[in-house]
Amino acid sequence: MQQLAVVKIGGNIIDDEKQLTSFLKSFATVKGYKILVHGGGKIATEIGKKLGIEPNYVNGRRITDAATLDLVTMVYAGSINKKIVASLQALGCNAIGLTGADANLIEANRRPVKEVDYGFVGDVKSEQVNTKVLKMLLESGLTPVFAPLTHDGAGTMLNTNADTIAQELAKSMADLMDVQLIYCFEKKGVLTDPVNDDSVISKIDEQSFEDIKLQGIITDGMIPKLENAFAAIRKGVKKVLIGHAAEFDKLFAGTGGTSIL
Amino acid sequence: MQQLAVVKIGGNIIDDEKQLTSFLKSFATVKGYKILVHGGGKIATEIGKKLGIEPNYVNGRRITDAATLDLVTMVYAGSINKKIVASLQALGCNAIGLTGADANLIEANRRPVKEVDYGFVGDVKSEQVNTKVLKMLLESGLTPVFAPLTHDGAGTMLNTNADTIAQELAKSMADLMDVQLIYCFEKKGVLTDPVNDDSVISKIDEQSFEDIKLQGIITDGMIPKLENAFAAIRKGVKKVLIGHAAEFDKLFAGTGGTSIL
Repeated sequence: MQQLAVVKIGGNIIDDEKQLTSFLKSFATVKGYKILVHGGGKIATEIGKKLGIEPNYVNGRRITDAATLDLVTMVYAGSINKKIVASLQALGCNAIGLTGADANLIEANRRPVKEVDYGFVGDVKSEQVNTKVLKMLLESGLTPVFAPLTHDGAGTMLNTNADTIAQELAKSMADLMDVQLIYCFEKKGVLTDPVNDDSVISKIDEQSFEDIKLQGIITDGMIPKLENAFAAIRKGVKKVLIGHAAEFDKLFAGTGGTSIL
Repeated sequence: MQQLAVVKIGGNIIDDEKQLTSFLKSFATVKGYKILVHGGGKIATEIGKKLGIEPNYVNGRRITDAATLDLVTMVYAGSINKKIVASLQALGCNAIGLTGADANLIEANRRPVKEVDYGFVGDVKSEQVNTKVLKMLLESGLTPVFAPLTHDGAGTMLNTNADTIAQELAKSMADLMDVQLIYCFEKKGVLTDPVNDDSVISKIDEQSFEDIKLQGIITDGMIPKLENAFAAIRKGVKKVLIGHAAEFDKLFAGTGGTSIL
């Protein structure tokens, strides 16, 4: 089967011009099919402040009210997405910027209100990722670049976590291609010691993950990331890699970061 | 040959929620291949003001400095484009939002500085419209929706007039398909009397255009529009139609507005 790399870059990289440029250079050289999913970054918050839109957080999750939805649609699908697309084009990578609304690629349900009303936040309808169009784009030599937005199919854009989008794309495409899912962030991988950047665990399987959780040696924020990684693997994704954007080459080659198998 | 309609809607329609919704409903029902190109509208100026970006105009043309480029990229490719795409999706039209940077669809040269430095404004490299990808998207059942932005191929987005983008797309696709180019604006067509909305000239050919110009019976703003229309026809576009967005159905059927042949 054809190889496909689904790569996610977080906000920290997007906010840092130098890191972003360096990452995009490495990403552009990757041979074979690839998809990039980018997060948001601080720029939305900064522009929001100027526009008088104050961010609301509940349990560390941003509440997406109507004004925030307009803001993130503008910044994620406009500013950030097109900046990345134009940069990749200059590097010879034929990028095409997308959201879940475009070509109905990723439909989502607005998250049901329980204790918290998250507002215009979308939970991806996994079975409805439009893999046919994605496959056609890839086979035409294009590199899809996703902003972290979906839609409800009824005319409303929805804010969706970039990690989730990457994971859903990887899982859906796993039926058609050999998929590896790569999360680039600001650490070299999953660390046993959060203050020691070199304490990277090179490989984690489901058994060692249970041990690690019991021992409490990884930070809380990493646990849902890893749980998502295992969920992707159970759905047919070959490999999940977590590491630093600056080490993307090593990560892609499987010689750096943390491999989840 | 396959029929293709390239339709441009201006800022006045985009600024008016009700008109936009009504137009999109008509547009969505058009059978066959279609491409939508949208203009900017007042929202960019409004958001710009809040962000402290004051618009600069020279000879009625907006100067696109770096801050304005960021602003229009955000608003045109983010807010407006995704709003239209999500709305069309809800109407059963499989829209895909694009700029000239995406899939390298429309490359442009930054306009050379003569008396005026227009800033980050792009003049389309006509021969470089990526018709192959456009054809593939259309044949896959997708409806491209263009924001009025191009790129220079070297990493920079450029601001390009929506009329020009529509015209360049129509001309380029004329080699592959039977193209009609439809400009929707706030008048019922080309008027002989600017204060009488019903004084629509139903047909204009090159000869009658010369007569009209000599008689001075059409407004100055309309002359470059018509010159562009004839330029498109000389490049193989079958028909150019100019009329009111609210009469799109008639316009598309050739029973309303002004036909340029």
